[in-house]
Amino acid sequence: MYISVTLRLATRYFNLRYNNTVTDKEIYLDYAAATPVCDAALRAMEPYYSRSFYNPSSPYAPAVGVRREYENAKGRLAHTIGAKGEEVIVTAGATESINLAFNHVSRHVVTSSIEHPAVIEVVKKFSHTFVEPNNDGVVSVDSISRAITPETELISIQFANNETGTVQSIRAIANLIDKQRKERVEQGNTTPLLFHCDASQGFGQLDVNVARLGVDMLTMNSAKIYGPKQVALLWTKSTKLVSPVILGGGQERGLRSGTENVAGLIGFTEAAVLAHKKQPRESKRLIELRNSLENRLLSSLPMAIVIGNKKRRLPGHLTISFPGIDAERLVFKLEEKAIYIATGSACSANKGMASHVLVALKLNEETINGSIRLTLGRHTTQDQIDSASRAIIMAVKQEYTRLGISI
Amino acid sequence: MYISVTLRLATRYFNLRYNNTVTDKEIYLDYAAATPVCDAALRAMEPYYSRSFYNPSSPYAPAVGVRREYENAKGRLAHTIGAKGEEVIVTAGATESINLAFNHVSRHVVTSSIEHPAVIEVVKKFSHTFVEPNNDGVVSVDSISRAITPETELISIQFANNETGTVQSIRAIANLIDKQRKERVEQGNTTPLLFHCDASQGFGQLDVNVARLGVDMLTMNSAKIYGPKQVALLWTKSTKLVSPVILGGGQERGLRSGTENVAGLIGFTEAAVLAHKKQPRESKRLIELRNSLENRLLSSLPMAIVIGNKKRRLPGHLTISFPGIDAERLVFKLEEKAIYIATGSACSANKGMASHVLVALKLNEETINGSIRLTLGRHTTQDQIDSASRAIIMAVKQEYTRLGISI
Repeated sequence: MYISVTLRLATRYFNLRYNNTVTDKEIYLDYAAATPVCDAALRAMEPYYSRSFYNPSSPYAPAVGVRREYENAKGRLAHTIGAKGEEVIVTAGATESINLAFNHVSRHVVTSSIEHPAVIEVVKKFSHTFVEPNNDGVVSVDSISRAITPETELISIQFANNETGTVQSIRAIANLIDKQRKERVEQGNTTPLLFHCDASQGFGQLDVNVARLGVDMLTMNSAKIYGPKQVALLWTKSTKLVSPVILGGGQERGLRSGTENVAGLIGFTEAAVLAHKKQPRESKRLIELRNSLENRLLSSLPMAIVIGNKKRRLPGHLTISFPGIDAERLVFKLEEKAIYIATGSACSANKGMASHVLVALKLNEETINGSIRLTLGRHTTQDQIDSASRAIIMAVKQEYTRLGISI
Repeated sequence: MYISVTLRLATRYFNLRYNNTVTDKEIYLDYAAATPVCDAALRAMEPYYSRSFYNPSSPYAPAVGVRREYENAKGRLAHTIGAKGEEVIVTAGATESINLAFNHVSRHVVTSSIEHPAVIEVVKKFSHTFVEPNNDGVVSVDSISRAITPETELISIQFANNETGTVQSIRAIANLIDKQRKERVEQGNTTPLLFHCDASQGFGQLDVNVARLGVDMLTMNSAKIYGPKQVALLWTKSTKLVSPVILGGGQERGLRSGTENVAGLIGFTEAAVLAHKKQPRESKRLIELRNSLENRLLSSLPMAIVIGNKKRRLPGHLTISFPGIDAERLVFKLEEKAIYIATGSACSANKGMASHVLVALKLNEETINGSIRLTLGRHTTQDQIDSASRAIIMAVKQEYTRLGISI
């Protein structure tokens, strides 16, 4: 009996600490906004807050040990995207990585109008062209080709859109850029032409490999892959392509000053290694769950419209609209049942503005206002999908009834 | 018996997790380089990695709750320096805060030559004047007064130097700046004149209050006050004084974009509240311990030279030189006894360069090369000081003997 009490207490304490899934009663369908930190990451981080808290720039052995562990982790992290540790700059988030990727630009940049606000805002500092996507959210290679001028220094296209889940043709764009670079050489144009990919969304769901993608710079975000927030990386083919945003003590080979975030990087690494390992199976699992959710909603709610390209889509992603409905009301109705979903991206959701992404897809106002984003993740189960789809169907029907719209 | 075993197991587990002091065998005397995260901070942070991992910009209740807790914490944090939450911009470290403080400058800045590398490097982007300190490390009000031109927009002086512990006359400098501002109004000079103070070192050891200091902007660093690394703040009298370094989603009132570091800010807040509460007693305790260390070293090693102003000094700080000795050898000799000290600042220690601070104090090469930095902190005890002083005295004597220098 004593042993059982002890075990129960220990188990309870353990669960309180390490049970990072949302509680049984909650159905979290907003993994594109934030992911809980996985146990592997959390456990790996802990020693660096307490026992191994040393400044990695200090000269004594335990601090040198921390420095070594930091560099080793960076190597392991880089390996998950097919890169080397020395090509990685650790930053305090994807937004900072993106600011860093653009910081060397002096002339023209090309990007799409459906990028994350970080890209949209940074681009405004330069001469720039926003490429419009097709109505299904795909940015075509042709449209990028037309936007490139002899002055263009940087092209930045996201791996997958955070609002629609649409996956872009990064490899095909890279091939185009390669061709353009060769033409520049022939024409004697010495302006460098670089390709940055914001892969904040997608790692752990699809293959994200810098060589296979063919990019020159890549942003990857810990906060979206079950690692801690406030840590990300910018991978660069060559550190010569980057000029620092944050100046100071010269950490990260002078490209990002400030005492290293050892705990954060170590957590990011463990999360990335785990997500990378799980990716092939997780991808299949999420596709099945997402399709089951989509099919149920479409069969019960025939007016529903799936937004974005249905084939080129993140496995765990479903953006769907119920035209005429106020999506925000839907969010709050579902919240009452402890089901957490988003209307648009978390970034714009709280600002009362129509999503710039959905506007760029030329959707009408009713479709935009009626759209919700359902993003599935590691802790999503078929049971949750069953409950959530029932609840969404009921809530949407109630709303249509309230509005006097027959379906 | 069972109860006692249970308790012992529980206690052991608890200690393994929360014992953030360095182990009994280690004597850590490098608190200016890094501090372990205190239990209060660590415990407060944990829920935000797991159960409360939501993006604070998401619309559903638990996420809104996280947003509220974030803003509440910011208010409590600001209160420790006599400020309001809405005046605080949360950043990913003191280096970023400093970059942010300078980012609105377009003309001339005045700073001292003994600032942290973050200030030294950022200042180089602008027309600037480096004020030299006196030989005791104090930056005189007169020297700043002489450096100010009609074009000067920003003056940045550190609260306390990280290498010598010398505390600057921030209030007196603020009074000078106030006088200069009034003169500008009379002269019709509309150039704003602002005062930024880098208070990365000193909070928790001395009173750091923005009103009493009379500054316009202040940098405060979690990593040096038993909070997590990679989080800091920039306090500003008015957010109009700041233009953002990191652009994007518009977090922190548009002044620092990127998903909020909820866990980090909460940890920073708990650490700051605790350090603020402990400060008056801790200050006295550290002065006694530091003086005891200093007196022992000076009485056994009469050639030793204390560096920096002995009166205007951080309570836990002792920078001392043994001319002729190679301080790096001393670091490694002490490391063998698990005593961890620094040669200069952790930032320059690993780069094989003479500290720019000690050079600015016009110390001769022998004194610079023979100087060590001993910084005491919350877990430093009189026993540790006894052991450390014995070990330092023995090591220094051995080194002098090895070099054939009689003492």
